[in-house]
Amino acid sequence: MTDTTRTIPDSRYGERLAACRDAIAARGFAALLVGVGPDLRYLTGFVGEPMERITLLVIPREGPVSFVVPRLEAQKALSTPLVRGGSAEVISFEETDDAALLVADLFAPRSLASGAAAWEPIGLSDRLWAMHVLQLQAVLPGRRFEPASVVMRDLRQVKDADEARFLGLAAAAADRTVDAIAAGPLVGRTEADVSREVRRRLVDEGHDLADFAIVGSGPNSASSHHDAGERLIGPGEPIVLDIGGTLGGYLSDTTRTIWVAGEAGLAPEPEFVRVYELVRAAQAQATAAVRPGVPAEQIDAVARAVISAGGYGEFFTHRVGHGIGLEVHEDPYMVAGNATPLAPGMAFSVEPGVYLPGRWGVRLENIVMCASNGAAVLNRSALELRIVRG
Amino acid sequence: MTDTTRTIPDSRYGERLAACRDAIAARGFAALLVGVGPDLRYLTGFVGEPMERITLLVIPREGPVSFVVPRLEAQKALSTPLVRGGSAEVISFEETDDAALLVADLFAPRSLASGAAAWEPIGLSDRLWAMHVLQLQAVLPGRRFEPASVVMRDLRQVKDADEARFLGLAAAAADRTVDAIAAGPLVGRTEADVSREVRRRLVDEGHDLADFAIVGSGPNSASSHHDAGERLIGPGEPIVLDIGGTLGGYLSDTTRTIWVAGEAGLAPEPEFVRVYELVRAAQAQATAAVRPGVPAEQIDAVARAVISAGGYGEFFTHRVGHGIGLEVHEDPYMVAGNATPLAPGMAFSVEPGVYLPGRWGVRLENIVMCASNGAAVLNRSALELRIVRG
Repeated sequence: MTDTTRTIPDSRYGERLAACRDAIAARGFAALLVGVGPDLRYLTGFVGEPMERITLLVIPREGPVSFVVPRLEAQKALSTPLVRGGSAEVISFEETDDAALLVADLFAPRSLASGAAAWEPIGLSDRLWAMHVLQLQAVLPGRRFEPASVVMRDLRQVKDADEARFLGLAAAAADRTVDAIAAGPLVGRTEADVSREVRRRLVDEGHDLADFAIVGSGPNSASSHHDAGERLIGPGEPIVLDIGGTLGGYLSDTTRTIWVAGEAGLAPEPEFVRVYELVRAAQAQATAAVRPGVPAEQIDAVARAVISAGGYGEFFTHRVGHGIGLEVHEDPYMVAGNATPLAPGMAFSVEPGVYLPGRWGVRLENIVMCASNGAAVLNRSALELRIVRG
Repeated sequence: MTDTTRTIPDSRYGERLAACRDAIAARGFAALLVGVGPDLRYLTGFVGEPMERITLLVIPREGPVSFVVPRLEAQKALSTPLVRGGSAEVISFEETDDAALLVADLFAPRSLASGAAAWEPIGLSDRLWAMHVLQLQAVLPGRRFEPASVVMRDLRQVKDADEARFLGLAAAAADRTVDAIAAGPLVGRTEADVSREVRRRLVDEGHDLADFAIVGSGPNSASSHHDAGERLIGPGEPIVLDIGGTLGGYLSDTTRTIWVAGEAGLAPEPEFVRVYELVRAAQAQATAAVRPGVPAEQIDAVARAVISAGGYGEFFTHRVGHGIGLEVHEDPYMVAGNATPLAPGMAFSVEPGVYLPGRWGVRLENIVMCASNGAAVLNRSALELRIVRG
């Protein structure tokens, strides 16, 4: 596969910006300030990591859009599809300039032809660093700042065909990685060693980056965010494998719980099998509940009802899912209190889990997309309990 | 090498927290709020990525230190050296709780036995996400927020012996990677392909993670922050290789400019050689200027004077260096306007560059530590111009 198939067409960025400005007006914002991160990538195609130097796309409700960048990044900013397409102008600053003041100048009377009033809020992208938030607040005294996500989430949570394709490719690469790990051997290896193999395989299978490779063995499987450590995996215990990488900017994220039987073939205790099947049923029923118009919280409620009916409700300690795209966790969240109606093109995890402290845990996670007639499941690796001999 | 040699002793974290609280009092802060990132790792040993759920170490000037985490992360927080050592208490919240309110409650009258007054500022860690800054500002109306870096930088910019050791190991691993790449072949490969090899080698040579692998060939070498792309490297042009990874949490960062002669042995034009030697001289003289008490900006000025005297001052478009440690860019910055006196244990880059737009660029970068008698240079790969035949 060549890199070009992992690229969003240039024309898309101008369309996204236009939709963003409509949303800015509809929400009554004066402007959005978008720092380095997924929102900026979505709007401009700029790929990078946040740093101490301010890099901000300034989108007023009307008038020219400015991409304020350190001179070091000017060439990179000029080569983004949004700027190449003529939809934003690059303003670069020198190492000894005060970039926050430069941004504030864009809000001076008559500088920003926005028609926006001073009492209208300025939206800040979710991941903008506090150091920059505080700098901007200091140079724009009296202005109100609100999360830009109010605007951005409506745009980003519904995926277009290219985004859906990247999510599908990433999910398939993660599935192949799961299958390879489940083929063993596992006994006698450290979690960290298995985790390193996961990261290597995630990239070998087609991801650009390996992002996470949680391996929780034995009692560590009961800690839902356990990292991989120096514990040796033994026979007669489960491992929870929660892994993901980035492909074309889009994330994979899948979890399987595997039983390590060892050469002696140590079978799981009956309660483990019962809990596994309960989690599997919860995962299946929550997935079956996905369709347009259903509130996001309903997907959580369905999974929770299954697990509670089985007697393990108090051990299902997290929401059932999160949106996924340019971020591994993004809107919409499948959690009590989120009434957002599902819509075709939304992508999110369905990942119930049961965790018995000090003993073991079970989690099963697929990424699904809401389609017009139900859920399109992106992960295809087996959900049946796999028993690994080696 | 086992992982244990990459671990900071547990007792260090309690000492760091004590020093932090002294600095909080000295600076007149009411408290610091430290989110996931390098500040949190430095203080607690917690390793992770920021996410949408609030995770905050709340350090009042006096009284108990609270580590507010989602229930999912509770086990991980409990196992950090700071908490294990009894210096902080974990407060976990559920998926449907309002974590910002929970933090605000710690600032309610009589809850925070800090002796701090309501007008004293609350420090926010540099990398805390805007979404959390805005949430905290909303639930703590009228409170003043300032960058926690005022406190944290004094602690973090002077490295202890363990930190220095990690920086040295990381630098050596990066040097071996540079040497392997400079052995060729390079002609006919894409920048992206060389970049992938760099990332693989950074890990093979001992880094836990490969963080960046800038490969700028031909005219791309003139863009100081160029990423690796699909351009084919040809004979008779330079590449700028700017690479780094993480080892034990600490970064490497080194740059070499290599001349790709190809099998025909195409020699660099005289101006390239002249500029290369000018940059090399600037790098050497700036390094020689390092000693305790010298203002950070002086290191920049020395390099700039050399390059300006050579007639290329306007093409040296960035500061000469940045501190390095748990972040690839951190205090102290070697830049005009930073009068911070260098002190033994400070680690930073010395990386002058000259960039001729559309033609080529040259940059040479070492990490150095300020020692009592001058600079200890951590990178050891050759600074002489290397000519690669293949």
